[in-house]
Amino acid sequence: MDEEMLVSFPALFECLQQDQLNEFRDIFFDLHVYEQGQFYLSLDAEDRQKLYTYLSPQEMANMFDVIEEDQEDVDQLLKEMDPNYASDMLTFMFTDNAVDTLNQLDKKDVSMYLSIMEPESAKEIKNLLHYEDDTAGSIMTTEYVAVEAEQTVASALQYLKKVGREAEIIYYIFVTDEDGFLVGVISLRDLIVSDEEELIKDVMSERVVSVKVGDDQEDVARMIRDYDFLAMPVTDYRNRLLGIITVDDIIDVIDEEAASDYSGLAGVDVEEVADNPFQSAAKRLPWLVTLLVLSMSTATLIGHYEALVSKASILAVFISLITGTAGNAGTQSLAVAVRRLALQANDRSFFRLILAEILTGLITGLITGFTICVLVGVWKQNFMLGFVIGFAMMCAITVANLAGSLIPMVMDKLGFDPAVASGPFITTLSDLTSVLIYFNIAGIFMQYFIK
Amino acid sequence: MDEEMLVSFPALFECLQQDQLNEFRDIFFDLHVYEQGQFYLSLDAEDRQKLYTYLSPQEMANMFDVIEEDQEDVDQLLKEMDPNYASDMLTFMFTDNAVDTLNQLDKKDVSMYLSIMEPESAKEIKNLLHYEDDTAGSIMTTEYVAVEAEQTVASALQYLKKVGREAEIIYYIFVTDEDGFLVGVISLRDLIVSDEEELIKDVMSERVVSVKVGDDQEDVARMIRDYDFLAMPVTDYRNRLLGIITVDDIIDVIDEEAASDYSGLAGVDVEEVADNPFQSAAKRLPWLVTLLVLSMSTATLIGHYEALVSKASILAVFISLITGTAGNAGTQSLAVAVRRLALQANDRSFFRLILAEILTGLITGLITGFTICVLVGVWKQNFMLGFVIGFAMMCAITVANLAGSLIPMVMDKLGFDPAVASGPFITTLSDLTSVLIYFNIAGIFMQYFIK
Repeated sequence: MDEEMLVSFPALFECLQQDQLNEFRDIFFDLHVYEQGQFYLSLDAEDRQKLYTYLSPQEMANMFDVIEEDQEDVDQLLKEMDPNYASDMLTFMFTDNAVDTLNQLDKKDVSMYLSIMEPESAKEIKNLLHYEDDTAGSIMTTEYVAVEAEQTVASALQYLKKVGREAEIIYYIFVTDEDGFLVGVISLRDLIVSDEEELIKDVMSERVVSVKVGDDQEDVARMIRDYDFLAMPVTDYRNRLLGIITVDDIIDVIDEEAASDYSGLAGVDVEEVADNPFQSAAKRLPWLVTLLVLSMSTATLIGHYEALVSKASILAVFISLITGTAGNAGTQSLAVAVRRLALQANDRSFFRLILAEILTGLITGLITGFTICVLVGVWKQNFMLGFVIGFAMMCAITVANLAGSLIPMVMDKLGFDPAVASGPFITTLSDLTSVLIYFNIAGIFMQYFIK
Repeated sequence: MDEEMLVSFPALFECLQQDQLNEFRDIFFDLHVYEQGQFYLSLDAEDRQKLYTYLSPQEMANMFDVIEEDQEDVDQLLKEMDPNYASDMLTFMFTDNAVDTLNQLDKKDVSMYLSIMEPESAKEIKNLLHYEDDTAGSIMTTEYVAVEAEQTVASALQYLKKVGREAEIIYYIFVTDEDGFLVGVISLRDLIVSDEEELIKDVMSERVVSVKVGDDQEDVARMIRDYDFLAMPVTDYRNRLLGIITVDDIIDVIDEEAASDYSGLAGVDVEEVADNPFQSAAKRLPWLVTLLVLSMSTATLIGHYEALVSKASILAVFISLITGTAGNAGTQSLAVAVRRLALQANDRSFFRLILAEILTGLITGLITGFTICVLVGVWKQNFMLGFVIGFAMMCAITVANLAGSLIPMVMDKLGFDPAVASGPFITTLSDLTSVLIYFNIAGIFMQYFIK
């Protein structure tokens, strides 16, 4: 947001209070639609009602096209509008955004809006509503520009002038044959610099990179990022053009994906901004309690070694040192594995990757183990104890590293998202294995350091 | 990448082996530049040398424009080219990409290439090279299209036909006055649907959203995402147009940012894909050893309570349960805080946020503590012990939650990146406070559960 916008808000607010419709619209339409949206969202329910009388459904739609993605309580906003106004607005929105909005409502509300809508728009929206979440189909829009291969450049430009306002993006023009099959693409840039007499088929590129309607949205995001595209055509399995996906929606996918990986590593949904501590707690508790129950198995395991601890209480001193360090190492290896899976950089085989991770674990374990061996040896004046701690740490780190890379890779192979709540599970699991390794090694050598 | 590309690679490779220049170029230029780049990167040094004779510096530049951002060893690639060929290629690249590439070389190599380059290009690149990392200036390009306010739409379109090929993006046309001050913007879409006789100043939008050359690239990314822009103008502090930032570069910024937040939470740089276990270990060890030394303080603290443990070895059983759970809670609260800072959603005051976090900690602590109290009480048939564990856990979670949200907020206020290596530090710190809380509470109540 820039400064000018912040200056406009109080002025707009005053016009609203004093019912100065014309002054309001003068200032309001000087703002970018995103800023209009921010103003709208800053109002209370009563002022929003006034805004619905100030703005046409189409003007409201332009605003909703930009703000829909951030809005968690979009269902409340729609419900406070007159149903006819709301369904008119949905008609004027780009189809993909209207679909996103409707996806946040109850089924019966969706049917209600679709039934008041004019049949053609309702049909277009219905077609998109049934695509599965996270597929190319679920984020595509049908407002693209398509021309035919036999047209001239001049007639294509003429056509653009006519339909340009309605399309979501006009900078790629897709070329189809008479049956709707995608046969080429031309950028508006190339169209503009081409000779007006030429035929589209002679200036278009025949190698169109496209995605299938059922493709994963993350794959689409990766392609748009790699190819630096502004939009990408979506086809059915027979290569008929169904819609396009634009770069602004891809930015949202990338953002969403990053937030979900981050959430997984932290064991909390960071996307859901809660309003009060009770809601925050309710969101965090399921993970915490699940992990707590898992941790109980570690406690039970330590319980088995209680006799050992009562003989050598010094052992208790190093439990958290070993579990903590192994947990850190496991988290590192997990994060690297999840990132590699996200980038699909699987150029090496499964077993070579696992082998590399075991070796990395051994090397880090060896050095960390040696460090702690010296530290403990000097601190406690007992190098045998140092050796036990260091050796246990090396083994614990190697196992944690292996688990950290193996688990996400196996989850991915099984078709699960490798990033879901992975961080805390790895540390909790590595607590268990670390304790097992630690007490077994300590048991073998304990005669050497019992005082 | 699509299937056609994978089919082309063996054919291209064969042409290269059999010196079939024309066949090679026929297949090669059917590929998208990104795919051309992937083919180039798949070759060994000898075949790459051949490619430099097959392709002109300009053709190579188109390819480098798309692949530069992924290429870690771009300096090696440049060095194997003839210096004149390399500097010609840099000249043909978009200025922002040439600058990105040069930024990965040694200073003396940079001067070398700049000195062979034609003076005008060298000057343009030099101007961009001095912008600080992570500012708008460092990612902007100077290949934009600008017209004057007094031109007609027809003459602007004519001008576009002439310069369209050279600009990085032509879909936003910026309008300047005679002194180079930014006065308006018009999208190519609006230009095309406008009457050709109209003046630019009558069809342009006067409210241009722009960024300053010193602005943080993350702020620019946020604006482009919110406003759904394809490009954004960059001005100096007097509002003179210096360059533009395009959406493809912003996707890279968002990706980079997400990877760095993720790396911070895991305590490892996930962006650097290492080639062998020794390099991987070298990247992970600094964090691990630093955290190990920090963990030593926790071990030292437990050492102080060794007498207590030798009297009641049951206490050792629950150390990792309490530190682990508090660590998980602290990580959750940290992730939420980092995310909130990234979104700049600071609509509530610092103290209200901290208060909310303390309350969330108390609620989650109370419920988690009660759960563990019952579990331990039933397991060990000792509800006094259960109470001690549960109460200690509640306190430890509240403190960990507070630390998890306070530390990133304070780091942010002090101007540091709140996401750097935050995850492991919080868990290690929370180990320390949890142990302190646990043994103090246990010390008070221990007479009730010593057997």
